[in-house]
Amino acid sequence: MFVEKIKTPGLAQLSYVVGDGDRAAVVDPRRDVDVYIDISRREGAQITHILETHRNEDLISGASALAEITGATVLHGPNPAEPIAYAQTIREGEGLTLGNLGVSVLETPGHTDDSVSYVLHDRELGGEAIGVFTGDALFVGDVGRTDFYPDRPEEVAGLLFDSLQKLAALGDQAIIYPAHGAGSVCGAGMADREFSTIGTERQTNRMLRIEDRDEFIRRKTAEEHYQPPYFRLMEQMNTRGGNPASDPLAIKPLAIPDLKAGMDDGCQLVDVRSPESFAGAHIDGALSLPVGLVTTYGGWLLDPEDQLIIVADNLAQAREAEIHFSRIGYDRVAGAFTDGMAKWAAAGEPFESMATVSVSTVKERLGKPPENWVLLDVRKGEEFRGNAIDGARHIFLGHLPGQLAELDRDASYTVLCGSGMRAMVGGAVLRKAGWRNVDVFMGSMGAWTNTAE
Amino acid sequence: MFVEKIKTPGLAQLSYVVGDGDRAAVVDPRRDVDVYIDISRREGAQITHILETHRNEDLISGASALAEITGATVLHGPNPAEPIAYAQTIREGEGLTLGNLGVSVLETPGHTDDSVSYVLHDRELGGEAIGVFTGDALFVGDVGRTDFYPDRPEEVAGLLFDSLQKLAALGDQAIIYPAHGAGSVCGAGMADREFSTIGTERQTNRMLRIEDRDEFIRRKTAEEHYQPPYFRLMEQMNTRGGNPASDPLAIKPLAIPDLKAGMDDGCQLVDVRSPESFAGAHIDGALSLPVGLVTTYGGWLLDPEDQLIIVADNLAQAREAEIHFSRIGYDRVAGAFTDGMAKWAAAGEPFESMATVSVSTVKERLGKPPENWVLLDVRKGEEFRGNAIDGARHIFLGHLPGQLAELDRDASYTVLCGSGMRAMVGGAVLRKAGWRNVDVFMGSMGAWTNTAE
Amino acid sequence: MFVEKIKTPGLAQLSYVVGDGDRAAVVDPRRDVDVYIDISRREGAQITHILETHRNEDLISGASALAEITGATVLHGPNPAEPIAYAQTIREGEGLTLGNLGVSVLETPGHTDDSVSYVLHDRELGGEAIGVFTGDALFVGDVGRTDFYPDRPEEVAGLLFDSLQKLAALGDQAIIYPAHGAGSVCGAGMADREFSTIGTERQTNRMLRIEDRDEFIRRKTAEEHYQPPYFRLMEQMNTRGGNPASDPLAIKPLAIPDLKAGMDDGCQLVDVRSPESFAGAHIDGALSLPVGLVTTYGGWLLDPEDQLIIVADNLAQAREAEIHFSRIGYDRVAGAFTDGMAKWAAAGEPFESMATVSVSTVKERLGKPPENWVLLDVRKGEEFRGNAIDGARHIFLGHLPGQLAELDRDASYTVLCGSGMRAMVGGAVLRKAGWRNVDVFMGSMGAWTNTAE
Amino acid sequence: MFVEKIKTPGLAQLSYVVGDGDRAAVVDPRRDVDVYIDISRREGAQITHILETHRNEDLISGASALAEITGATVLHGPNPAEPIAYAQTIREGEGLTLGNLGVSVLETPGHTDDSVSYVLHDRELGGEAIGVFTGDALFVGDVGRTDFYPDRPEEVAGLLFDSLQKLAALGDQAIIYPAHGAGSVCGAGMADREFSTIGTERQTNRMLRIEDRDEFIRRKTAEEHYQPPYFRLMEQMNTRGGNPASDPLAIKPLAIPDLKAGMDDGCQLVDVRSPESFAGAHIDGALSLPVGLVTTYGGWLLDPEDQLIIVADNLAQAREAEIHFSRIGYDRVAGAFTDGMAKWAAAGEPFESMATVSVSTVKERLGKPPENWVLLDVRKGEEFRGNAIDGARHIFLGHLPGQLAELDRDASYTVLCGSGMRAMVGGAVLRKAGWRNVDVFMGSMGAWTNTAE
Repeated sequence: MFVEKIKTPGLAQLSYVVGDGDRAAVVDPRRDVDVYIDISRREGAQITHILETHRNEDLISGASALAEITGATVLHGPNPAEPIAYAQTIREGEGLTLGNLGVSVLETPGHTDDSVSYVLHDRELGGEAIGVFTGDALFVGDVGRTDFYPDRPEEVAGLLFDSLQKLAALGDQAIIYPAHGAGSVCGAGMADREFSTIGTERQTNRMLRIEDRDEFIRRKTAEEHYQPPYFRLMEQMNTRGGNPASDPLAIKPLAIPDLKAGMDDGCQLVDVRSPESFAGAHIDGALSLPVGLVTTYGGWLLDPEDQLIIVADNLAQAREAEIHFSRIGYDRVAGAFTDGMAKWAAAGEPFESMATVSVSTVKERLGKPPENWVLLDVRKGEEFRGNAIDGARHIFLGHLPGQLAELDRDASYTVLCGSGMRAMVGGAVLRKAGWRNVDVFMGSMGAWTNTAE
Repeated sequence: MFVEKIKTPGLAQLSYVVGDGDRAAVVDPRRDVDVYIDISRREGAQITHILETHRNEDLISGASALAEITGATVLHGPNPAEPIAYAQTIREGEGLTLGNLGVSVLETPGHTDDSVSYVLHDRELGGEAIGVFTGDALFVGDVGRTDFYPDRPEEVAGLLFDSLQKLAALGDQAIIYPAHGAGSVCGAGMADREFSTIGTERQTNRMLRIEDRDEFIRRKTAEEHYQPPYFRLMEQMNTRGGNPASDPLAIKPLAIPDLKAGMDDGCQLVDVRSPESFAGAHIDGALSLPVGLVTTYGGWLLDPEDQLIIVADNLAQAREAEIHFSRIGYDRVAGAFTDGMAKWAAAGEPFESMATVSVSTVKERLGKPPENWVLLDVRKGEEFRGNAIDGARHIFLGHLPGQLAELDRDASYTVLCGSGMRAMVGGAVLRKAGWRNVDVFMGSMGAWTNTAE
Repeated sequence: MFVEKIKTPGLAQLSYVVGDGDRAAVVDPRRDVDVYIDISRREGAQITHILETHRNEDLISGASALAEITGATVLHGPNPAEPIAYAQTIREGEGLTLGNLGVSVLETPGHTDDSVSYVLHDRELGGEAIGVFTGDALFVGDVGRTDFYPDRPEEVAGLLFDSLQKLAALGDQAIIYPAHGAGSVCGAGMADREFSTIGTERQTNRMLRIEDRDEFIRRKTAEEHYQPPYFRLMEQMNTRGGNPASDPLAIKPLAIPDLKAGMDDGCQLVDVRSPESFAGAHIDGALSLPVGLVTTYGGWLLDPEDQLIIVADNLAQAREAEIHFSRIGYDRVAGAFTDGMAKWAAAGEPFESMATVSVSTVKERLGKPPENWVLLDVRKGEEFRGNAIDGARHIFLGHLPGQLAELDRDASYTVLCGSGMRAMVGGAVLRKAGWRNVDVFMGSMGAWTNTAE
Repeated sequence: MFVEKIKTPGLAQLSYVVGDGDRAAVVDPRRDVDVYIDISRREGAQITHILETHRNEDLISGASALAEITGATVLHGPNPAEPIAYAQTIREGEGLTLGNLGVSVLETPGHTDDSVSYVLHDRELGGEAIGVFTGDALFVGDVGRTDFYPDRPEEVAGLLFDSLQKLAALGDQAIIYPAHGAGSVCGAGMADREFSTIGTERQTNRMLRIEDRDEFIRRKTAEEHYQPPYFRLMEQMNTRGGNPASDPLAIKPLAIPDLKAGMDDGCQLVDVRSPESFAGAHIDGALSLPVGLVTTYGGWLLDPEDQLIIVADNLAQAREAEIHFSRIGYDRVAGAFTDGMAKWAAAGEPFESMATVSVSTVKERLGKPPENWVLLDVRKGEEFRGNAIDGARHIFLGHLPGQLAELDRDASYTVLCGSGMRAMVGGAVLRKAGWRNVDVFMGSMGAWTNTAE
């Protein structure tokens, strides 16, 4: 009887292979499904079921792709917004067995109407629930967001409260297996801890500890969440069932003439190298999007209809970026340029750099502000409200392309975030839009805090 | 905050990498330590501590080897039989921190005098214990064996009872991380389940549920356990601290002349192929020991002073066998022969086969027993007592070499076990010792049970 | 400027990646094409051309699959039996360039009408030909077979003679890169050496040294070659262009009930384990076909329309067998059983063994032949004619299924080959057809020769 | 009979595994020897001999390490400067056999006194030499350098001439296998082609075509070669025999406090990231040395006694750099920092950037030179002499640390090379030495040439 967790970085999504003997199920698979098949084989088990806790909105489900390869049955809770073409509906009280492992369903709506949890029992030794896949209902240290039904915010928050009581009633001994970990956009306050139990959550989860339903609803409806535009795309694709992730061999290395031809054809350059590489030299018009930010900001800053060309240090990094893009449904990757900026420049092609400034320079400027200078903070609202530099202006990075009209094109800008990585992306967004007096605060709030007297 | 489990097959030993942020500890490392370093790097953490729950007797500890590579500090509980040269003593009430993870020590003697458990706390969110490394005190579905101090069996069983109460007091919410899983020789009744909590064990673990100390002592002292002779070797090596596992490149493929030279020099052939391969053709004098049985029976059937030559299907299998041997301190592997029996025979060399019989043949013989025929069951005592064929004689495979004197060399033998794998080993032991009328019951008790009317 | 050779075992087929700077071509790709893409990326080059030396008859070409992935142009010589749907025709005098590497075409018919050779020149340093891809015209130590046009044997042998003179005229300094190596069915006398030049071949290749055209024709038309029935399938597929090799994830591990269901559905079991494993225990009705023999004998012994189930030691071996099958167009692999015969038998299922005999037993039988006993040699005709045991009957293994009618079903058979591997296959063919008195001479001619006084 | 070439990038060193049947030899192994063992196993052969063509001066020989693992015999030519502790001497006329492959020795001094070539013969098919390992005597397109004996330049150049005649006499058909390819410091004019024969070299190698011994001596003694200071270290180590390359696990990831502690202890930071990353942000005092330049410039710019800390994009790149360092005997790598400059800056630590200029800026400056401005070209002398910008000053990068005294510390510098990569290294050397007005010409001569009208 085993449970193996698979972490998807960037999205902080968690999926699982669970099984006993020669039978296994996969819970909430991502689109690149090889990992699940590898694990099931290592364990000597066949994947007979795919369990979806809800229709995901932040990544493409691998359920239909995995079902096609393995012949497994996909199960999904009742009440989806639209029928899930590739899944059978499973309801509270129903269940399945995997060897001596019993799996039963608990309907736990609130995050979405179709959310269910899958409760594990040991059919041989008995006892109460040994574990539960909680989807986006209950996380380590937080609970699911409830902002997806703007017409009925109180109702769904109340539904989540009721669902949480069901989960809490499983008993302190039950291990929880949520669908996301710290860093996910699906809940702001998740703990960095990767393991927990109902008992530990009952002791430490500030939302689960709220006993009053109305108070819970008040707290949930006051939360602020961002909804990247690509969420709509995910929802559509996860209703229909998507094709598997594209072939890892399909990414094409581009020589300089190929790259230039692609640029002439209107491909968007996405530079997934480190912020300091982008600062040192990059191709004009490229968007900075370090590979670790692809899944979190790609859906805000890029059009899913665009043909993309990835600029990377090497093919392995380009391939990683392509996988990240494919997880959020961006499949139009025309190729990758990995020859480096020295070779690009040596071909006689023009390159750009992005000026960086240190914390001491920022302090100097704050002491004696340059004319028409804006210190632009692109972190999330909650980060900005938690700790900010006096005088900084805030626009969330994801909203920056849509709010450019509010910014004076002739002013000079110093962009900051937590460390400088998102600031470099923000700087690149400004530059692409025609702003020329832009620099990036390397170190950003980290440096600010760590050098405070 | 992460815990990652590493399973060592054969021994069913479990070790762990646990950490938070850029700090990690390894709990009960095995001798081939690369896996721990790989995991810590993937998590972006340095290994600063190595936590031993007790001095292992069933495998060589990798603590000193890992400490040498990483510079980590090795911690070990008080009261070892002999001082642990490479470790610092840690006592109840002491502890360490790994980022926001607090680790505190609970002395939990009984299995051994030096057994400790390591309790995990979340220093940021608070609450009770979130998990505990229980070593060989508490397993999923069972508790540790207490037969290592023959002079004071009741005392140590009582100590274990007290230790278990300490563990139970950590609260239902605490996840348990034991040092062994199902299949280990360190406890007979372990569940096949790989995850549990104090709460689930309190509900389902038949030994933990015993409330009466005397009753617990009675039950423990009545248990029967085997102690393979190599346990003594392990204990010695784990006091001194061993060298790391031998270089994976060091195994030498042997051509036929090399193999014959090795045989002339007195090397012991160990044939790690499947039982059916051994049955089909093998080199005379070879011991059958399918690779999955190396750690469990190698220590019973082979002399640690012997030079070994591994006969395998291919180098990967030979290498796997060599790693298994190294985990139990058998380092004298002179090389591997992987050319196959067809090539061996084609060189004009003599080969042997082992006759196999099916369940129908065994039933016929039982109906009308051949003269001087012995049906020999080599399973463990508890297996034999649970379900056996009427008329079968029982000698545990590990005891077979030592009890040959009790067997009539002129009788004919049909050897059986659970499926035929250990029976093939038993058959090979008899053959090596000069018995000629030997065959093996393929399918064994499995076939017997599955064809019962 | 690089040439990298890719050996395909079993078929002894050689393909190449050749290139300079950022441009590369692949010569005679096999169907599983990842290896070519990996090499071209490592070299920093794009594959712009795929060069076919002729329409292969012994394996499925990967040209169309590779062209689809890379966008490369496929080139093929003139005069194919049927138009090659996916290729452009290239003729003598035409060529292409890859960086500073010049590639020009030489029409070298004889083996097939559409055979061409691709000659390499260094465009920077000059000089004569630096190398040549000779396809199936010229091998190391032999020349191509000329038996594919039964209506005009002398004509095509003469064409090959003329083609060889063209190749010899390239000069002693030219390195040759043929399409097959020792062990291929495309030429019997190939040397085991993997590298040569026109100069070395002019000195040592017994066929290239023949100066008289008529003598050459006489020698070629007297050669005997086998044509496995699947060659027709290959020719058809290589005219149309095939799909790429099936997904490596697609092979399904089968539990015992799945295996039995497959057997009930008429799937053919193919046991790719070693001959000694098959001898020790196998499932009734399985064909023995050790993985190394899949490409050479699979096309003789199996029907391409059959659904196959692979019985293997483990999934890696099953996967290897599946790749071998896919190279010769056998794509109907329903799954693999890798649990081993002990587990099969323990489920109460019946198993079979195959008796083996040693050289001493064979000598005894020859001294005093048992009644109605046949010593059956299944090697190739040329092997049998070179060295055989007096009294042995010869039927080539590939012809055995078709010649069963000539054999007495009630006689007893001892099957032999070179070492025992093909003999085990032959024994399995007889058993499947209902012959019951069959054993296999392990060691076979190797043992016979090595124990001769 | 096979020959497999192993390319060592950076050094452009070529080593080989050659063998037949179950016997193989390795020619000129590098220090990280796993690759040779892997190849020999894949070919099913044991390494019985290690053949050194001469005592290498540009990398550490892996001969003694490989001999220890495999038990193989190391062979080395006569007349080394000092006795080779780990090798047996082999002389002209002597030889060995590997299956049907004959290997005979030709003494070919000139590059070094102890240089020999190993000639291959096919013992079965006969004929002339089929190939020859030429060491540093004969390359594709060039011959070995002869500047290692400053007391007797004409004599050794003459010896090389004589040796080349011996090699030429082997016949046009012989394939050559040299010890270096294009990019090596062991010969300036090597062709980029990786394969050749005596015949092709006789046609195209400008040095081999010289018929007059005196003319040859004149040409060789007029050549200019650089001798990095680490060559002396290599010579010493290759006399004694070195230990194997350090354990791949040994590189330690350093957190920021560890890094700072290392810097305080006087460790030298080596930044192996791309030049544009270094330009964007780097730690003050770090030397830029992109990973591909480690073996070619590490020996010029770093002290073998220094403790090094590698700054890299990730651990894989750090590990690659460590292997490169180990190949030239720099084993003192204390750890690696791979967290990136954003994290470094966010910790409040100071960072530096390096200004870059484009070709248009350089042209502007040349048109109207700034005061006290130096355009510094750090390429090799032969590159500078071949094509340079009017007014540029030349100092070879390897000589830069030793010639700083000649440069005005108060002038401003623009550093250039072929593409900008070595220029970034040169810029970092100046900065480390206290020069503050430094920028780097990205694109360098490539951009200059490609934008010329």
